[in-house]
Amino acid sequence: MNCGELLIIGGAEDKCPEGEVLNKFVELAMRKPGGIGILPTASEIPDEVSKEYIRLFKELGVNRVEVLEVNSKRDAEDPAICEQLASFSAVFITGGNQSRLSELIRDSRLHKTLSKAWHDGMVVAGTSAGASIMGKQMIVAADMKLDDEKLKVEIGKGFGFLDDLLIDQHFSQRGRFDRLLSAIAENEEIMGIGIDENTAIVVSDGKFEVYGINQVLVLDGSSSDYINITIAENGSEELTLSGFRLHALTRGYQFDLKTRKLSLEKRIQS
Amino acid sequence: MNCGELLIIGGAEDKCPEGEVLNKFVELAMRKPGGIGILPTASEIPDEVSKEYIRLFKELGVNRVEVLEVNSKRDAEDPAICEQLASFSAVFITGGNQSRLSELIRDSRLHKTLSKAWHDGMVVAGTSAGASIMGKQMIVAADMKLDDEKLKVEIGKGFGFLDDLLIDQHFSQRGRFDRLLSAIAENEEIMGIGIDENTAIVVSDGKFEVYGINQVLVLDGSSSDYINITIAENGSEELTLSGFRLHALTRGYQFDLKTRKLSLEKRIQS
Repeated sequence: MNCGELLIIGGAEDKCPEGEVLNKFVELAMRKPGGIGILPTASEIPDEVSKEYIRLFKELGVNRVEVLEVNSKRDAEDPAICEQLASFSAVFITGGNQSRLSELIRDSRLHKTLSKAWHDGMVVAGTSAGASIMGKQMIVAADMKLDDEKLKVEIGKGFGFLDDLLIDQHFSQRGRFDRLLSAIAENEEIMGIGIDENTAIVVSDGKFEVYGINQVLVLDGSSSDYINITIAENGSEELTLSGFRLHALTRGYQFDLKTRKLSLEKRIQS
Repeated sequence: MNCGELLIIGGAEDKCPEGEVLNKFVELAMRKPGGIGILPTASEIPDEVSKEYIRLFKELGVNRVEVLEVNSKRDAEDPAICEQLASFSAVFITGGNQSRLSELIRDSRLHKTLSKAWHDGMVVAGTSAGASIMGKQMIVAADMKLDDEKLKVEIGKGFGFLDDLLIDQHFSQRGRFDRLLSAIAENEEIMGIGIDENTAIVVSDGKFEVYGINQVLVLDGSSSDYINITIAENGSEELTLSGFRLHALTRGYQFDLKTRKLSLEKRIQS
């Protein structure tokens, strides 16, 4: 059996029946029975956040939408919650703080259950923090204000569905190019994917395809012929690099994750 | 005779005797007699802006520092002002609005005098708007707020000292990666140079070298294998591109403008 699709959203996706990104998620989720589980652990207001998704997914025709109530490490070891998770056809990981997702869930029984279910075909979607958590590594540093000195980017561990990708979200909207470039310069075998708000990629079969209204930026350091990072006395980073490759994609375009190239079999989306 | 150096500053350079960027300018200016002319035409408060540079350049040992009082198209045709300009060893173009510089000075007698003087060895420096004006083309669009939809970038004409480069300034600090990428995607034979605040490049002999405390980003679309720009109904731009090359440099590093590569003869700066 093949892994399920990953739907990775840059945050702030339209939560209305016309929103392309969540429509796509529901379309993928409904190919099988089981319904949708919402994992709101990243959020500090999980009930509020869940309520909106439940309303929308039901509006879009999903009969069973339930919340996975995981608020502690103990919850993440709870066999009943793991069983609940395994029963869905798709799981949706909300926004919030990706470090909280990592701290409470990473390496837990729930994490293993989710990984296995995904390997067996479950669709896994995540937005914002829920997008960052998809990689083996993720950026956890608090936002740098644009007029701050550049600080060293802090890297944490994600759920590891994508070993070779590092996802950043709210990308253009929060001016995160510098932090992604910095993260990739420190891990140049990993490819950086910066996803704008209300925009998503669907990853399957070694490719991704773009949905939604903005842009996805791909930063590839594997072709680099020079990287030098020094930390100045004041803690700011001095980054020099040469020969990175850059791609930008909008809706309908596909990117081949093996060749690391735009795939020009452009699919016509409805 | 060779062209003079161009010192191109990303804005907000330290205006104190310790500031590396303006120190470098004074060093270049003082290799010949003549002193420094300040061109504050871009600014809406030219007197205030000039005063600070006069104070600093005098503090750094320059005896003759004068303002070029160009506030109209008529001033830009004034033979006396042109003569004054030609008498300096270096000219410093201040920040402000680059469209004002272009409107009042471009194609004027003063523009021709400045171009000829530069070709004959005059040092020309510019900061912020004064940096953007250096290229044949420049970005003139008002700043996009980060959470706006991406709008088509407006391109205007600069003084044309650098035919193949498009300069953007306050680069990381104002999150201008998107607008530079968009501008280069529309003119992929031109290379984009994004200069951070308190950071500068000195261009001479087909190379540039970086001074100051932050970063210079180079965006090269010449290796691109795909570019597609469509304008959505709401006026926002959908940009898809593949295979751009990206470089980032910090102080002391050189970039070869002919080969479009980092030059690894790193100069040790004092």
